[in-house]
Amino acid sequence: MQMSTLVESLQESLSTSQVSTNDTARELHSKDESYHPPVTPEVVVYPYDAQDISEIMKTAKQFHRSVYPFGLGSSLEGHVIPTEDGISIDFSEMNRIIEVKEQDLLVKVQPGVTRTQLNKELKKYGLFFTVDPGADATIGGMAATNASGTSSVRYGIMRDQVRDLEVVLADGSIMHTGNLAAKSSSGYNLNGLFIGSEGTLGCFTELTLNVHGIPEHIVAGRAVFPTIDKAVEAVVSTLHAGVPIARCELVDEPSVKKANEFSDTNYPIQPTLFLEFHGNEAGLNQDLEFMKEIIKDHGCKKIEFEQDNAARNKLWEARHNLAYAYVHGAPGKKMMVTDVCVPISELAEAIKHARKVVDASMFEGGIAGHVGDGNYHIILMFDSSSNEEIQAAAKLNEEIVKYALAVGGTCTGEHGVGLGKQKYQAEEHGESLFVMEKIKQALDPESRLNPFKLVQLKE
Amino acid sequence: MQMSTLVESLQESLSTSQVSTNDTARELHSKDESYHPPVTPEVVVYPYDAQDISEIMKTAKQFHRSVYPFGLGSSLEGHVIPTEDGISIDFSEMNRIIEVKEQDLLVKVQPGVTRTQLNKELKKYGLFFTVDPGADATIGGMAATNASGTSSVRYGIMRDQVRDLEVVLADGSIMHTGNLAAKSSSGYNLNGLFIGSEGTLGCFTELTLNVHGIPEHIVAGRAVFPTIDKAVEAVVSTLHAGVPIARCELVDEPSVKKANEFSDTNYPIQPTLFLEFHGNEAGLNQDLEFMKEIIKDHGCKKIEFEQDNAARNKLWEARHNLAYAYVHGAPGKKMMVTDVCVPISELAEAIKHARKVVDASMFEGGIAGHVGDGNYHIILMFDSSSNEEIQAAAKLNEEIVKYALAVGGTCTGEHGVGLGKQKYQAEEHGESLFVMEKIKQALDPESRLNPFKLVQLKE
Repeated sequence: MQMSTLVESLQESLSTSQVSTNDTARELHSKDESYHPPVTPEVVVYPYDAQDISEIMKTAKQFHRSVYPFGLGSSLEGHVIPTEDGISIDFSEMNRIIEVKEQDLLVKVQPGVTRTQLNKELKKYGLFFTVDPGADATIGGMAATNASGTSSVRYGIMRDQVRDLEVVLADGSIMHTGNLAAKSSSGYNLNGLFIGSEGTLGCFTELTLNVHGIPEHIVAGRAVFPTIDKAVEAVVSTLHAGVPIARCELVDEPSVKKANEFSDTNYPIQPTLFLEFHGNEAGLNQDLEFMKEIIKDHGCKKIEFEQDNAARNKLWEARHNLAYAYVHGAPGKKMMVTDVCVPISELAEAIKHARKVVDASMFEGGIAGHVGDGNYHIILMFDSSSNEEIQAAAKLNEEIVKYALAVGGTCTGEHGVGLGKQKYQAEEHGESLFVMEKIKQALDPESRLNPFKLVQLKE
Repeated sequence: MQMSTLVESLQESLSTSQVSTNDTARELHSKDESYHPPVTPEVVVYPYDAQDISEIMKTAKQFHRSVYPFGLGSSLEGHVIPTEDGISIDFSEMNRIIEVKEQDLLVKVQPGVTRTQLNKELKKYGLFFTVDPGADATIGGMAATNASGTSSVRYGIMRDQVRDLEVVLADGSIMHTGNLAAKSSSGYNLNGLFIGSEGTLGCFTELTLNVHGIPEHIVAGRAVFPTIDKAVEAVVSTLHAGVPIARCELVDEPSVKKANEFSDTNYPIQPTLFLEFHGNEAGLNQDLEFMKEIIKDHGCKKIEFEQDNAARNKLWEARHNLAYAYVHGAPGKKMMVTDVCVPISELAEAIKHARKVVDASMFEGGIAGHVGDGNYHIILMFDSSSNEEIQAAAKLNEEIVKYALAVGGTCTGEHGVGLGKQKYQAEEHGESLFVMEKIKQALDPESRLNPFKLVQLKE
């Protein structure tokens, strides 16, 4: 009997058209939007369903290969980049919205569905999916990294939205992590464990998510502050007063400038909070009046409300395209985005520190972020052909991470560990990293699932 | 060298006063509020801190004993009952509120702190802890069972409130599961995994919890319906309309009667929703008007608002004491409470089914529950000296569970698995039960931590 190759075996268990060794396809699956150097996978597969993925897992085991789930490649820490010879699993053929369960405020989707695709469908029902990381990522990718974004201050992060996952494990078995009830005290919380596991424990093949009714009333606006500290203090006071902000984004001076250039807006070039409120009209008006009082005390001279839907959409487009604005403004350079999250009480000092670190560096660097959660980013453009710049950018990132850890924060608020934050896991988690390793060891003993990401098993 | 006994060793590593083999103490730690038969522990220990618990773990290992964490014994599925010779760990000496981090809306407590103790302290800061299971349970116990209760429809369950846990593992090592940031994508979600693990993966020694500002405006009331179905349909419609209800409790006719008798109220004896709303005054009034319209369409003839704080407190006291009202009305009998949770779209039918099952049984049985979450209870009093009644009660419970599982629900919405729901774990979780077993095996390979609860390792 002739032994078949890896590719032949994959073609046999899937179909020829679902398996590609084409150079373009492989190159496309070698990288994400991060600065981490690309590594080309041996082969790219395009599964249709859980059964296909189960077969891929079995073939991977038989041929001693690793698997690397790939959504749209919008990850920011190298999550999808192969670390050794292996199989890139592309979910683009698994992009069906399976069922909108309107009465339960649930939707069941395949992992390759994108955020905007989902919201377009949900709009027909007067519903929306709350998690908005800016990028039009896949739902599977957002679940794998526990994404969040602008509206998480009000509605929670990806982990809060998942009612059930269908998962294919390393051994090819297929299981569900949850059920359809709004709450449960039955068994260990596998939903929560798998969300944010970055493809290291299993592959998601179906996700059942909470959705919300589109709010009756939405108001967005911009509040301008004399300094970045004052803006941050205003957010902290507002949160503490219990005003339910739906989005609350800090954009510093250089970033407002970049946004104006890229998005053709004309916002005042000052530290600004981009804000949004959801609710019923009466309650919202009362909240807005209250908030205006609060932020006035922190030096806000002006809060400007967007007058129509188009202006509101423009505002969030400008915010969401900020990273692209930086990329666009620095052709040929690579982007590095820090992603720490600190306790709210530490936020004002942390951002002051961040500004100092940037000013002392060789980079321009803008600060922006979801300050209602204590999560902020420094966006840096660096020359990846210059060793000096690579090292300086890495040093800056490290300085920001160390500061966040020292004040009780985390090295990544929403981008995930991937390759870039691996080195901070021991410092951040201490003893609990051993528990994470034991879990990885128990579920993926041969470390075949996205190896070297998140936790790294000793050989 | 003389070998010391288990008790001597415990006395040595803790202190004499922290170790008791007194019959009364042991009897007190042999049971909870459930119908499960008591089993007496060999010894009861009263640790002061994590270090004490670490010592207890090491001694337990040395003497091949199991450990059974014990809060106040208010669990409803036998969670604290020893299943073999072992050590009951009583947390009553670990009842300090360590720190209120006002600006972060966080509080750090020891596990023996009770819910009312915590809220009394938080009130000084204008804050409150949202999870309210009715019973004045310990925070540690509530975390161990992933408790929820009346206000979870608005604020979420216990798992949603935990920012960080200090945990002592089976080997005596001490770790933290989280950090102080509002969100994180770093590492596996150990917070979520340990919450609801029922003492089977480790002992909590410190908990950092989210707290909320006391709402500006609170309105409570009772809405009376011609039938229980109509009441449930009204809840489903209200939720779907996006009205943010803070509490939403269904109490059926027999239960209103019991409440009136026990709590000296005079509520109309009809299927009733006990309701509460939190918000700013303007928003809340608009919500109330909207809700009144909705529930009128479902046959609600009257919604009566409580006019002052005393009447509001009375309302919730009556609801929370409902279980005790049943116990009080059936001296000598034991209580069994079902605890399924179903998808909201299935709730009306499920409660109709529950009523039929009760009517066909030999028991009276009241239905009450947190219907905003799809979680409802049948409260049954049965004679635990009668085999016939024991079997009939167990059969009824099973019928309710099987129904819930068949419609995508869970066998326990908030009470936990303990001893009583162990037998449904395979049916509910399918393949994922193997993953739970692997996790238990990885973290507690000798099955020393609350063995035979939640998952049961094969010998």
